[in-house]
Amino acid sequence: MLILNQKQVEKLVPLSKVQQVVNCVEQAFFDYGQKSVQMPPKVYLYFEKYNGDLRIMPSYSPKLKIAGTKIVNVHPQNPKKGLLTVMASIILNDAKNGLPLALLDGTYITGMRTGASGAVAAKYLARKDARTLGIIGAGQQAIYQIAAITKVRKIKEIFVFDINDKAIEKLKKVFNKEKIKKVSLEQAAQQDILVTTTPLRKPIIKEKWILPGTHINAIGADAEGKEELDPAILKKGKIVIDDWAQASHSGEINVPLKKGIISRQDIYSSLGEIVCGKRAGRKNSQEITIFDSTGLAVQDLYTANLVYQKAKKEKIGREINL
Amino acid sequence: MLILNQKQVEKLVPLSKVQQVVNCVEQAFFDYGQKSVQMPPKVYLYFEKYNGDLRIMPSYSPKLKIAGTKIVNVHPQNPKKGLLTVMASIILNDAKNGLPLALLDGTYITGMRTGASGAVAAKYLARKDARTLGIIGAGQQAIYQIAAITKVRKIKEIFVFDINDKAIEKLKKVFNKEKIKKVSLEQAAQQDILVTTTPLRKPIIKEKWILPGTHINAIGADAEGKEELDPAILKKGKIVIDDWAQASHSGEINVPLKKGIISRQDIYSSLGEIVCGKRAGRKNSQEITIFDSTGLAVQDLYTANLVYQKAKKEKIGREINL
Repeated sequence: MLILNQKQVEKLVPLSKVQQVVNCVEQAFFDYGQKSVQMPPKVYLYFEKYNGDLRIMPSYSPKLKIAGTKIVNVHPQNPKKGLLTVMASIILNDAKNGLPLALLDGTYITGMRTGASGAVAAKYLARKDARTLGIIGAGQQAIYQIAAITKVRKIKEIFVFDINDKAIEKLKKVFNKEKIKKVSLEQAAQQDILVTTTPLRKPIIKEKWILPGTHINAIGADAEGKEELDPAILKKGKIVIDDWAQASHSGEINVPLKKGIISRQDIYSSLGEIVCGKRAGRKNSQEITIFDSTGLAVQDLYTANLVYQKAKKEKIGREINL
Repeated sequence: MLILNQKQVEKLVPLSKVQQVVNCVEQAFFDYGQKSVQMPPKVYLYFEKYNGDLRIMPSYSPKLKIAGTKIVNVHPQNPKKGLLTVMASIILNDAKNGLPLALLDGTYITGMRTGASGAVAAKYLARKDARTLGIIGAGQQAIYQIAAITKVRKIKEIFVFDINDKAIEKLKKVFNKEKIKKVSLEQAAQQDILVTTTPLRKPIIKEKWILPGTHINAIGADAEGKEELDPAILKKGKIVIDDWAQASHSGEINVPLKKGIISRQDIYSSLGEIVCGKRAGRKNSQEITIFDSTGLAVQDLYTANLVYQKAKKEKIGREINL
């Protein structure tokens, strides 16, 4: 069994190689859209006393001949203790004989595959001539989103809003300084592609700000009660989800669904169905498209497999006998 | 994160320390009976092309403040390739902050915790004066069952039936040679405590062989279609299961249930309810009791936690940063 820690994983798929992750996450959505993977619903363990939970995310790809299980926690109080809110580990098993093949740190993979899904959504849903990117919430996930989206669209300028100036400074360090511009919330929202990555439970993006032809990646909502967009945007736009069970439970659509503002009929498609050609992506330059991302186990599986295959080739990681 | 391979796990809880495993598995059944643990249903991934599957078994004990996920395969063709049919790994997470604490080989733990559950069942269901043990199927699990059961009852003689003489020879090497006696199928079945550990799909234990007052551990059936006991034994006896969902799906009762020979009303209790005092165990010296074991995730969790705590104390295992 090969053990790959976070540093090793990062070395194998650094930000500069995000295109490889975008490609394999696109393949994951394709195979999911074709129903050629197994992905049972996430299992939750609830740590009520500690205000946290653990999510177990298994999946299997016959094409890869590999199964994966991601185990990932969410403990919002962790930063107070100097720990990350979300930490993940991924185990890969060989489908042919069941052997455990690898244990990988899954924290970085989770970030990268989420950024990559933003790029896959932009590839199929954003205007081909999209040149500006708006970022609301400039934390770690903003880095992955920018890195990935700029691989699928020729982005000239990136307009960022965050209540924390330091977060924006960090973006400027990672990317071309000139490209990153600190702007107001409203300005950030008025770009060709808009990415929201906040942990909010009340919409902050107003409907009147969103211009025709915008594509939105709604990344932040990942638990019941979370939402970032005025539901009027959803009413007006074309909603694309990653998975109905997950999105209706904890995605951007969960609150408006529960309030009856939108219904299942208002969902246009899953991203997988678009990627594999069952449904069309963007149809014209005027429509507003919204990708509601919650994160699929198959995104983790395909990305972890990419990392594992590269690790074997480059002889990185520590082999142990379990 | 502490990595513990099979050798290290075995060193921490060798067969000679099976009593410790019996105690912690008893605690697992107690807490499960009290409904003070979380144990969602096992998740299955099916490798149809390779005639195998993967089972993901998560659970959480607020008392231990630890969650565990066992990932275990079943590939019946593996022995032909020189691999084990069943291989398991277990990840433990800290409930307080979600940190992954340990990765343990779970293959030996699975064997030990199953043997220990046989002892817990015998403790509450076998006659106090049980002195003989019958074993049908003398493979690896027979070793764990004998080691554990002899801790809870003063067993004088062990009568073993197996189609493979070598398996019986192995038992003689592990245990007191004089105690182990090779006998016919019928003779093995006519003991105070009977343990069946075969992979059969047709009952081989006849009802007329089973004497009043016998306790049976039905261990072998762990998949749809498997059964070892003539259903007439179930009709006549007091059936105790570990978990309804698992037992009705893949335990000794699964075939007779599907055939309508028995129904849910014929199940007396779960072992957990008996261990925690909600239901009585054996009531007299005449009744036939049957424990239908399928194996609970909490048995793995409590045993893995025992191993992990001992490993930290004895400074065994390899610490890695994931």
